[in-house]
Amino acid sequence: MGQPHTQDTVHSYRVETRIEGPKKATVETRGLEIVVDAPEKGGGTNEGPNPVEYVLGSLAGCVNVVGTMVAREMALDLEIHTIVVEGDIDVRRFTGTETDERAGYREIRVTIGIETDADSEAVGEWSRLLEERNPVLDTLRSPTPVHLAVSTD
Amino acid sequence: MGQPHTQDTVHSYRVETRIEGPKKATVETRGLEIVVDAPEKGGGTNEGPNPVEYVLGSLAGCVNVVGTMVAREMALDLEIHTIVVEGDIDVRRFTGTETDERAGYREIRVTIGIETDADSEAVGEWSRLLEERNPVLDTLRSPTPVHLAVSTD
Repeated sequence: MGQPHTQDTVHSYRVETRIEGPKKATVETRGLEIVVDAPEKGGGTNEGPNPVEYVLGSLAGCVNVVGTMVAREMALDLEIHTIVVEGDIDVRRFTGTETDERAGYREIRVTIGIETDADSEAVGEWSRLLEERNPVLDTLRSPTPVHLAVSTD
Repeated sequence: MGQPHTQDTVHSYRVETRIEGPKKATVETRGLEIVVDAPEKGGGTNEGPNPVEYVLGSLAGCVNVVGTMVAREMALDLEIHTIVVEGDIDVRRFTGTETDERAGYREIRVTIGIETDADSEAVGEWSRLLEERNPVLDTLRSPTPVHLAVSTD
């Protein structure tokens, strides 16, 4: 759709969604499921994290993938043992209250706990490459074009 | 951590991560789990979607939540029956190949299938509010500050 795949290096991803309630949706990709929901006090059935929690989970998973890959490439003795991701949203735009605040995360903080024998220079280079080559981090940090189409067929 | 919660309208979200392999991580939030993995040919165990698929799933879930909420507020007879989200990534930066391409999604496309008796003007206004008030869409479309800290304790 739109993007011709003239290069093998361009990978396309796709999800389809089964709506199961005002807050609950089961999203499918490659036969795998993502259950998105909300807590009961938010009008959901609490069967899965909410959409904005999945954003943080996606970033945590990507930090693991890229961090582990880069450590191997650098032949570092470095192991990630914890990744905590936190973020803050002013919900006024979401709830329809008049505000100048943005709708999305105003800040996301990632804390990576590692064990390593590498020196601080090597860890610094590892951290730099982990940021630079991280698809989810870049998707969040840089503007990403999102196009919506509504179909009534 | 950092953001004082001086306003009730600022909500903070947090996930913690259990690393289970070079591609697999179980991310926990509020007792709920997000299993991030990769296909076997990508070095994973295929027990969950990959990080960039979760980005699309998160957006699909948020389109459902905001779309349903806005339709109710507008008292529209409008039902979302499908949400498809697709996106393309040039993987060269991720894999460490020299490139000017960005690491993240270069484009994301959302197709929303609806059933409605509303006229096209009302549907247009619904669609406009769905974009404007969507926390995940705004997190992707606008630059979001992401801060990394590496701890070796």
